[in-house]
Amino acid sequence: MALAEVHTEEFYLSAGECGPEQTLPVALLVSRLIEVATNHANELGVGYENLMAHGQTWVLSRVAVEMDRYPRVDERYSVVTWMEKLNRHFSTRNFMIAMADGSVAGYARTVWVGINVADRTLADISRLVPLADVALPQKECPIAEVSRHRPVAVPDRCADYCFRYSDIDSNRHVNTVRYVELLLNQWPLEFHDSHCMKRLEMSFMRESYFGEKAQVRLAETESAASADISVDGSMRCHFEIKYDVAST
Amino acid sequence: MALAEVHTEEFYLSAGECGPEQTLPVALLVSRLIEVATNHANELGVGYENLMAHGQTWVLSRVAVEMDRYPRVDERYSVVTWMEKLNRHFSTRNFMIAMADGSVAGYARTVWVGINVADRTLADISRLVPLADVALPQKECPIAEVSRHRPVAVPDRCADYCFRYSDIDSNRHVNTVRYVELLLNQWPLEFHDSHCMKRLEMSFMRESYFGEKAQVRLAETESAASADISVDGSMRCHFEIKYDVAST
Repeated sequence: MALAEVHTEEFYLSAGECGPEQTLPVALLVSRLIEVATNHANELGVGYENLMAHGQTWVLSRVAVEMDRYPRVDERYSVVTWMEKLNRHFSTRNFMIAMADGSVAGYARTVWVGINVADRTLADISRLVPLADVALPQKECPIAEVSRHRPVAVPDRCADYCFRYSDIDSNRHVNTVRYVELLLNQWPLEFHDSHCMKRLEMSFMRESYFGEKAQVRLAETESAASADISVDGSMRCHFEIKYDVAST
Repeated sequence: MALAEVHTEEFYLSAGECGPEQTLPVALLVSRLIEVATNHANELGVGYENLMAHGQTWVLSRVAVEMDRYPRVDERYSVVTWMEKLNRHFSTRNFMIAMADGSVAGYARTVWVGINVADRTLADISRLVPLADVALPQKECPIAEVSRHRPVAVPDRCADYCFRYSDIDSNRHVNTVRYVELLLNQWPLEFHDSHCMKRLEMSFMRESYFGEKAQVRLAETESAASADISVDGSMRCHFEIKYDVAST
């Protein structure tokens, strides 16, 4: 069977999945990207299970999502994914979010790292067959790459949060998607009603665990924000956000 | 087309959906029950959209879930639902959670109320066609009904929580599923590692909103707990839980 260079999955946005704007929540979108990437990797024979047989695993390192619009309640949408490139340690996987009528709602870029589970060092993923064969470096993904993160120097606001049971994933780390929710929870509902997230960048440095007390540090302008989540000064992730401000 | 008295949906439990036990989280199970109930109601022509045309909507009033075991990562499971009965104001909908090999993982019972949106009074749902025709009062659901709740008299523990953006659903109320997570977050990870939730009962009294400061009050024994979530003394929901304690 020929391996599919492009992998597509279709979704239906139910009311129960929507946030207060009756659209696809950003956190659920990120969750979908991870799910679809995982399924494509499994299909290619380079999923978690295959890597774990060699004592290796995938770790999501960076994500950029840029949306022209978000799917609305009762709409169908597709997530299309493909490998852009890989080198010794990093693999780049891109996404297109398409609506049922063929229009494009947005794009995403992700960077994944292979690590050796035993000592958490970088693994050599360049020899993973058939990753190089299915890369599509020419396929268009018209959004900027994830920028190098610059820690928040002088925060406008700080908040504390303790990671709880429902934040923990099947690897017993804090779920990536929970970081997004923790970030978004720094603003009141009225802010989200008047601002639409145009672009979200995330960089992950280190995993967090149950019971750790995190600090969220946020610097913001009218239409953008930078934020860090750290534990005792050890940075766990960094965000860059751009908002469209609704005209009033 | 004949209306289906029994509605079944199949699910696959991906690693990304699992909690730290690598099983279906209770909160996600409750979310699935609501989703499947909604889809069956839509199919029967008595979904939210149909009721809203008459200024009415469904409100989930009570839930009881009792599980012999929880689906594990990479397992397929089905949620089977049917209406048990209805009277003027209440409708009872039951569920069976079945594994791919036909074994039964557990059952659930739910009670739904029809309300008039304008004044939040109880609506008369007994005339909703064809609800009475598709009720299956004889179909077995071998778990106890949701008991009448008795508020926690003397709590062993109290905790505060402020409802945030990511807790709010498309009706702009606190998501039912978030109450379950808020409850489970009262215990440390080690407790969940050594206890498996056998039965969960929930009764909902009133909706909660963004920014409200909730108090969780909890009374517990070795294998059971009662809990309330309230805001300024106004009770929002009540829980009764029974645990299986893992042998050590």
